[in-house]
Amino acid sequence: MTDIPPEIETLIERMSKLPGLGPRSARRAVLHLIKKRGQLLVPLADAMADVGRTARECVSCGNIGTSDLCAICSSEKRATGEICVVEDVADLWAMERSGVFKGRYHVLGGTLSALDAVGPEDLGIPRLLVRLEEENVTEVILALGATIDGQTTAHYIADQLGEMNVTSLAQGVPVGGELDYLDDGTISAALKARKAL
Amino acid sequence: MTDIPPEIETLIERMSKLPGLGPRSARRAVLHLIKKRGQLLVPLADAMADVGRTARECVSCGNIGTSDLCAICSSEKRATGEICVVEDVADLWAMERSGVFKGRYHVLGGTLSALDAVGPEDLGIPRLLVRLEEENVTEVILALGATIDGQTTAHYIADQLGEMNVTSLAQGVPVGGELDYLDDGTISAALKARKAL
Repeated sequence: MTDIPPEIETLIERMSKLPGLGPRSARRAVLHLIKKRGQLLVPLADAMADVGRTARECVSCGNIGTSDLCAICSSEKRATGEICVVEDVADLWAMERSGVFKGRYHVLGGTLSALDAVGPEDLGIPRLLVRLEEENVTEVILALGATIDGQTTAHYIADQLGEMNVTSLAQGVPVGGELDYLDDGTISAALKARKAL
Repeated sequence: MTDIPPEIETLIERMSKLPGLGPRSARRAVLHLIKKRGQLLVPLADAMADVGRTARECVSCGNIGTSDLCAICSSEKRATGEICVVEDVADLWAMERSGVFKGRYHVLGGTLSALDAVGPEDLGIPRLLVRLEEENVTEVILALGATIDGQTTAHYIADQLGEMNVTSLAQGVPVGGELDYLDDGTISAALKARKAL
């Protein structure tokens, strides 16, 4: 009925599948892109094609890079014997932004979930066990979400690792956080883990 | 500092320029795209490249199409003598979705604005005056936003059109709207424009 050209309809429909965009905001984004064809649309299409061609998962840790081994796994400097287990590449990036962790990662790609039929093999946990020996790992740091699924997965991994030195991120008051806005669970965790000054 | 491949950094940076996406949601969208490379990223890049190659503005009305004259301007059926003036292509699409208007459009691409130095030429108003004669227009319908800028632009256009039959969209209670949630201005406009049943 409407006279939107099919190429543009297709673009809107595909854009609306991005997380955070619905049909209406996809339409708005597409119109904006078309208005700024030269500055935005063409460079964005090129960047997407580039990433589509080059991006791949690291065969060792599951991070996203442009070769079989990601930059972190192929750097000798990061062979510190510490492996940080994260749920997702987004979490790996967040850890890297903090700049504090100097070791390597292991990206699970999710959490154990009976409901969604996600088992240990889907999360690369057997591969993690293999890495422990190959890379002379001395400590596994679990940086999983403080959710039920995240904590279930953390406990499962800790069980699998047996004698290995396993730690997890501390729970407590976030930097800059005000007590008044914190939930009860966080306050009680912070109180239990209180430290002598 | 972080080890995100430059191709992916570039894509995130360009995605974050889309309206409705910031750096954080762009990162999330890019990770989602990379995870579903085959189903999402590559088709989206193709669709963007397609649109980048084909989309252009209609030389007559300013609508977006894939040839010099858009589908509406080149259709003889739409030569009804009515021209609907809208601010933006998004507004044209909204009018088309309603499916009630059968004539042609004129897309201003904005509103008059002294602050942003947008004058009548920038909005294609001289081109509208030329079209009135060329296309035997009998009525100009102003479908501009009920904002200060929209109404200023509407008054300016009405002045320019002189003897032409100029109308504008009715203001009143939206279909499905509840009085309780309407602003005072809308209620007073609806009351002033009340109709006998």
